[in-house]
Amino acid sequence: MRKFPAPIHNVVAAFSQLPGVGPKTALRYVFALLRLPKGELEHFSHSLLALGSDITVCRLCKTYSEAEICEVCAETKRVSHMLCVVAEPRDISTIELTGVYHGRYFVLGGLLNPVEGVTPDVLNIHELFERLESSPELTEVILAFSPNVHGETTMLYLAKQIQKRGLRATKLARGLPLGADLEYADEVTLGEAMTGRREI
Amino acid sequence: MRKFPAPIHNVVAAFSQLPGVGPKTALRYVFALLRLPKGELEHFSHSLLALGSDITVCRLCKTYSEAEICEVCAETKRVSHMLCVVAEPRDISTIELTGVYHGRYFVLGGLLNPVEGVTPDVLNIHELFERLESSPELTEVILAFSPNVHGETTMLYLAKQIQKRGLRATKLARGLPLGADLEYADEVTLGEAMTGRREI
Repeated sequence: MRKFPAPIHNVVAAFSQLPGVGPKTALRYVFALLRLPKGELEHFSHSLLALGSDITVCRLCKTYSEAEICEVCAETKRVSHMLCVVAEPRDISTIELTGVYHGRYFVLGGLLNPVEGVTPDVLNIHELFERLESSPELTEVILAFSPNVHGETTMLYLAKQIQKRGLRATKLARGLPLGADLEYADEVTLGEAMTGRREI
Repeated sequence: MRKFPAPIHNVVAAFSQLPGVGPKTALRYVFALLRLPKGELEHFSHSLLALGSDITVCRLCKTYSEAEICEVCAETKRVSHMLCVVAEPRDISTIELTGVYHGRYFVLGGLLNPVEGVTPDVLNIHELFERLESSPELTEVILAFSPNVHGETTMLYLAKQIQKRGLRATKLARGLPLGADLEYADEVTLGEAMTGRREI
């Protein structure tokens, strides 16, 4: 990493802040950038600036948005009797791709993880309950978290509070993923796939 | 990738130009950027802009440089009887880290690869010969390329031309890398390690 001019070092340092990017990868990115056609670097730079200045958080669902209210929340066709709670904004696009959910979303901003300091007050939990209380048409809250320790903890914590408010709390089905092999399925998954079996 | 605001899409597109970065990784980078402390995005953006405007190519050795002549070429302590030819600017820093070479460098800009259109006129070969002819103290040219097909081809091509000019053309030693296992060494490497054996 020695003997490179300061402008190169500065971009290497900037890239090194990204997840999974060390100095070697960062340097590889910088050399690729230096080979881009003229004007592309300016374009890249402006798009980063726009990311910082034009992206805000949707007032209703806490996802990233250009406007005060995001596109999904602004859609009038969405059904309002269910709300899907996700951990991160990227989960919204993953669920949208399936095309099977037509309600709105709420972004929690993470999963409960007291060891790493993620306690209920760090997440948008207070805002979620405000949202539930201001939505009289709501009957079901889907807790769409990853099925890991933190996801399950957050699910249990929220489900109790949601049920207290007289609403249904649901979670995503556990079962065998497409293309899976019975032989390699873990017992918990296979057990839940068995109890959750469906008519063909 | 649907349902994200345009500023996010633009940065995802920009990152996707980097080697090994697909839309999923790019999106991961964007979410990491959005979590950076305020001001960091502006800083990142400015450093990219500076990369485009402040980095030029050293007139003497063709590496990336801030000034017309790069730091290594400008160092007066460097010996001038040998010149190390490398494929890419990053190879200079790799060799500098070893601390055993005290001469100057010359960046070829790639390795000969006619199938992919990398012919001698695409590389800085003409400039290399000009450099050789304008350096009367020079006696040895080290061709420090990776030991693969393209590296060997380029080495053979250049060695002939260098020897014609009455200069020594040398290449990096082939042998067993530190920590290697004799059992897994390929025959070519082991053969060259044997013929190139040294007094202990």
